[in-house]
Amino acid sequence: MAGLARALYARVARLPYICPHGHTDPAWFADDAAFSDPASLLVVPDHYIFRMLVSQGVALEMLGIPRLDGGPVERDPRVIWRLFAAHYHLFAGTPTRLWLDYTFQNLFGLDRPLTADTAEEYFDRITACLATPEFRPRALFKRFGIEILATTEDALDPLTHHKAIAASGWPERVVTTYRPDAVLDPDHKGFAEALDRLGEMTGTNTGTWTGYLEAHRIRRAVFRAHGATATDHGLLRADTANLPPGEARQLFDRIRAGRAGVGDAALFRAQMLTEMAKMSVDDGMVMQIHPGSCRNHNRTVFRQFGRDKGFDIPMRTDYVQGLKPMLDAVGMAPGLTIILFTLDESTYTRELAPLAGAYPCLKLGPAWWFHDSPEGMLRFRRMTTETAGFYNTVGFNDDTRAFPSVPARHDLARRVDCRFLAELVSDHRLREAEAFDLAQLLSYDLPRWAYRFDG
Amino acid sequence: MAGLARALYARVARLPYICPHGHTDPAWFADDAAFSDPASLLVVPDHYIFRMLVSQGVALEMLGIPRLDGGPVERDPRVIWRLFAAHYHLFAGTPTRLWLDYTFQNLFGLDRPLTADTAEEYFDRITACLATPEFRPRALFKRFGIEILATTEDALDPLTHHKAIAASGWPERVVTTYRPDAVLDPDHKGFAEALDRLGEMTGTNTGTWTGYLEAHRIRRAVFRAHGATATDHGLLRADTANLPPGEARQLFDRIRAGRAGVGDAALFRAQMLTEMAKMSVDDGMVMQIHPGSCRNHNRTVFRQFGRDKGFDIPMRTDYVQGLKPMLDAVGMAPGLTIILFTLDESTYTRELAPLAGAYPCLKLGPAWWFHDSPEGMLRFRRMTTETAGFYNTVGFNDDTRAFPSVPARHDLARRVDCRFLAELVSDHRLREAEAFDLAQLLSYDLPRWAYRFDG
Amino acid sequence: MAGLARALYARVARLPYICPHGHTDPAWFADDAAFSDPASLLVVPDHYIFRMLVSQGVALEMLGIPRLDGGPVERDPRVIWRLFAAHYHLFAGTPTRLWLDYTFQNLFGLDRPLTADTAEEYFDRITACLATPEFRPRALFKRFGIEILATTEDALDPLTHHKAIAASGWPERVVTTYRPDAVLDPDHKGFAEALDRLGEMTGTNTGTWTGYLEAHRIRRAVFRAHGATATDHGLLRADTANLPPGEARQLFDRIRAGRAGVGDAALFRAQMLTEMAKMSVDDGMVMQIHPGSCRNHNRTVFRQFGRDKGFDIPMRTDYVQGLKPMLDAVGMAPGLTIILFTLDESTYTRELAPLAGAYPCLKLGPAWWFHDSPEGMLRFRRMTTETAGFYNTVGFNDDTRAFPSVPARHDLARRVDCRFLAELVSDHRLREAEAFDLAQLLSYDLPRWAYRFDG
Repeated sequence: MAGLARALYARVARLPYICPHGHTDPAWFADDAAFSDPASLLVVPDHYIFRMLVSQGVALEMLGIPRLDGGPVERDPRVIWRLFAAHYHLFAGTPTRLWLDYTFQNLFGLDRPLTADTAEEYFDRITACLATPEFRPRALFKRFGIEILATTEDALDPLTHHKAIAASGWPERVVTTYRPDAVLDPDHKGFAEALDRLGEMTGTNTGTWTGYLEAHRIRRAVFRAHGATATDHGLLRADTANLPPGEARQLFDRIRAGRAGVGDAALFRAQMLTEMAKMSVDDGMVMQIHPGSCRNHNRTVFRQFGRDKGFDIPMRTDYVQGLKPMLDAVGMAPGLTIILFTLDESTYTRELAPLAGAYPCLKLGPAWWFHDSPEGMLRFRRMTTETAGFYNTVGFNDDTRAFPSVPARHDLARRVDCRFLAELVSDHRLREAEAFDLAQLLSYDLPRWAYRFDG
Repeated sequence: MAGLARALYARVARLPYICPHGHTDPAWFADDAAFSDPASLLVVPDHYIFRMLVSQGVALEMLGIPRLDGGPVERDPRVIWRLFAAHYHLFAGTPTRLWLDYTFQNLFGLDRPLTADTAEEYFDRITACLATPEFRPRALFKRFGIEILATTEDALDPLTHHKAIAASGWPERVVTTYRPDAVLDPDHKGFAEALDRLGEMTGTNTGTWTGYLEAHRIRRAVFRAHGATATDHGLLRADTANLPPGEARQLFDRIRAGRAGVGDAALFRAQMLTEMAKMSVDDGMVMQIHPGSCRNHNRTVFRQFGRDKGFDIPMRTDYVQGLKPMLDAVGMAPGLTIILFTLDESTYTRELAPLAGAYPCLKLGPAWWFHDSPEGMLRFRRMTTETAGFYNTVGFNDDTRAFPSVPARHDLARRVDCRFLAELVSDHRLREAEAFDLAQLLSYDLPRWAYRFDG
Repeated sequence: MAGLARALYARVARLPYICPHGHTDPAWFADDAAFSDPASLLVVPDHYIFRMLVSQGVALEMLGIPRLDGGPVERDPRVIWRLFAAHYHLFAGTPTRLWLDYTFQNLFGLDRPLTADTAEEYFDRITACLATPEFRPRALFKRFGIEILATTEDALDPLTHHKAIAASGWPERVVTTYRPDAVLDPDHKGFAEALDRLGEMTGTNTGTWTGYLEAHRIRRAVFRAHGATATDHGLLRADTANLPPGEARQLFDRIRAGRAGVGDAALFRAQMLTEMAKMSVDDGMVMQIHPGSCRNHNRTVFRQFGRDKGFDIPMRTDYVQGLKPMLDAVGMAPGLTIILFTLDESTYTRELAPLAGAYPCLKLGPAWWFHDSPEGMLRFRRMTTETAGFYNTVGFNDDTRAFPSVPARHDLARRVDCRFLAELVSDHRLREAEAFDLAQLLSYDLPRWAYRFDG
């Protein structure tokens, strides 16, 4: 089995990377400035890393995470790096460790294990590399073999960097993704102002329900003009609603007038998922739904450091009742694609594979976030394939903020998929020739098809 | 380990098949008419197949599924077969693929993979086979080595075919199963008429609670006279109730009078599970509970094509609180057997194995429906054995509507069980001699015992 | 891989056992009296054993379990032993079987399988052994290589046996654990009297909220004086609350006055978990939370035989919302350790690993109860390591009432951990040298550190 897994991997290892969902910064490719130092590049922005260090008693201040009150935090990247290196053993058995070791070795040529003893050597080598032209963002993009990379921007983002990339004549393909969470969620801080701004940007009256919907249509078109083929929606729950038009309008009016009642905000979010799906039926944008994360669970950290500081904790998610109103509305609409993600693995066999294995619009996104790991990806395949097959999945998403880790993440996903395919062949559940075809499909074709990158 | 797995399998491969739960049509064995064609036999009735094709955009009409409005659907079995063959790659990695390949190979001698290119060859070969006496239902029954096969009939079914089988003198054992869902669920369409009909069939007054209960007792006895040893109950939830007799009667009266209040239908279903269990204490029928399927989730498909069209989606199920009222009433009753099934695998270790590993009346049915698959069966064994042991399980159910797949399904289950046993031996968790005994037990003895086929 | 697993195991097999959580009887070590017979030692007190026998129709009376009404039960240990031996095949594939076989073989030198045929030989051999000085509790403690063993006592326990152990000059380390369930839960039978008694023992006025809290502080100090480093809390749910002091006082007053309203008991339990956590911040005691068991599910057995008779069934548990109030209060408090256990494995990846992989106070207890088994421990490692790492876990707890099984349980845990580590190395997810370090860490260092046995 191990031999076949290696043969399958050899077939796909060098295929270009399709990166249809992630959080890299388009400014990197617009400006092509050098990355500054190892800590700022690899430690400070990576919540996988600082959450683990915090869990073992390291203060966020010592890792250079800015305080909201402007209080003192460590600013010396070498000091931060040393602290990180001294705690690197904590990552034994985690995907972070696999991604970083791959990056250290393949990108920076660092072969000795990272420890307190080798921290200086690592820091110096990486710093030296980053100063060279070969380590600028555009050079890395090409070296990594990325065929297409999607970033994710807020609905109100001016898309300045995407404009600059397009204007620069750089031939690589970096596209945006429409992420309207801040203008869909009445509980989002500054929601009213965001809607005002949305109106200004689109020349519509976002004081009315029809104007508000029209504003979304206009922004979606603008995003498409910057390469977007998809939208993305992050929510606590997978609840949807499909109100009669009059009720939806009244709901919007209550919220816009500051007269929202109990449950109105949740109902509005649910209704807007369905509205987004309907717009996708019209404009062909692929819809991604990422539910189930209880954000900023740690009140102390949230108050001192703000959002997204490693304390997002998954919650139980119900897709079966939650998605039904939306699916009743558009579930059989030709051409619609909705990609579902989950942090609740108990839904793989019980809800997601049965849904995706029946509704033509539904596809399963890859193992997400905490589950983007060898065990997580194996569980995903073992728990979804028998009911949904391979063709109702969409290949890999690296979903990363850490650009240098892109190859490491794709490489790991390809290895795990090849191992799974080899297991099936070994168990006489798949023919060997099929396994080679499927390895290519999962690594390259499915994400191109699912995200409509062929136009 | 692989060698031991094969040796274990060799020991059980040829044992007769015990089929205690399934949905084959007794008319086949009563009439013994030839099956008509490959599409009608293997594609049109199999929701596993058409759900997958629909998930990839194939219209149900093209698969010959009748529309409720009588609108046009494909009627040429060869055209349907070609369409199926062209999509056969979708089933890579699924149990459907394993069952069909086994059947193609072992029953029809078809060895080349099914693709668009081999579709005609397949169709012609299978069609030719089906026209021969060797492929009539009774001949297949014997050739398959089936020792006993239970079908499932509605409480109001006249059991005409079972009567005909008995009258025919055919020596094989085909029995019925009492499935009273339609006369237990007030939300079922035509419930009131069904109760009237139940009264007529049994000569009781189903306008009263006591008459209604008596009607069940009478029908259960009729079913037993046609070989039934078991009842079967499909519900959305595993909720039970045990009302005082007066309250139960009042509940029944409200429902019968069309004055059911909020929650009355659910409470009645819950109460009736307990009533069925009490009758099982009296008459010795094994009770099967299949909860947790949200039926007909797709509104569009339900409206156009009706029930059971591949859009039954599992839901979270609570057995611990749900079953408690029933278990408080009959949980320690001597001789009672209740077999529990689940679509919610998170309940295996948390709820079902602890319940079955303690209550003498509870046994665990095999991995069901979406989980009737290699990974699903392995998860079942790995997650239930350590707490419930093997003796609180009941062997395999093929649960099939597709008669030709019976051997394929049993064979797969036996292979997976043998592999699991071999793993235990290899890990020094079981002695080799025990593994051979257990292989026989799981393949043959347990279903005979659990379903009381020895009388 | 198997070779490396054996090499890792060889490294740790002989390390002393750290037993930070369990339910052995301190009287054994205080009195050092001989154990009486095989049935009383191994069968009658072990709910794993009698639940399985009951599930197959054996009456609790026949196993010598005392009836509450004093009715007749079997009293002859040899008869009980024979019955047990005749049913020993039921345990195939269960951890009970592995623990017992290990004990029979390594402690009593019994190599032939236990069956009805060998029952007498087993009984005689074990009885003879138990009569010798080498099988007295203190001798076994030393022979087993236990370095430290924690028992668990009720808050009102006079700790007589721990006092006696200390006074005896015996050099081994047996410590207590503070388990205040009976004085934290208003629904506990005799709660009011228990609080009166708590007041008497501590010289405080437990009629007032402040007096009640002070009584806890005093008892915790007394337990610490008898070696306790930890508290333990068993509850149905993981719900916590953090009421303003005035509201907490009023809640206590209502409960103490017998005027508790709907939800007050649950709220009080939730509040008291937070109070216990706050006390742990002050006094350094490690807090253990064991939620999610629906105790005494079987009404018939509970009425006839009382508590803890094998019918405790796990339930779904929510940690994310449940623990938030407590974590908002003390989640970042320096030095606090809270060890979480679960019976709901669906929470491993979704809730527990993300929580423990972020909050500095949270650690994951080992696979608990039904999951203290080879498959259960592998699932624990596979589902928690990638997010929480190894260092947010605490090694093994034997959690046993069956003293002779202590080595069997630790040995099994060490084997499974070594196998998991070997898998990681084989998959290139861990370096071999690290695996040896981690094997030692998981077997010995982590429980010492987590439970603060180094002082």
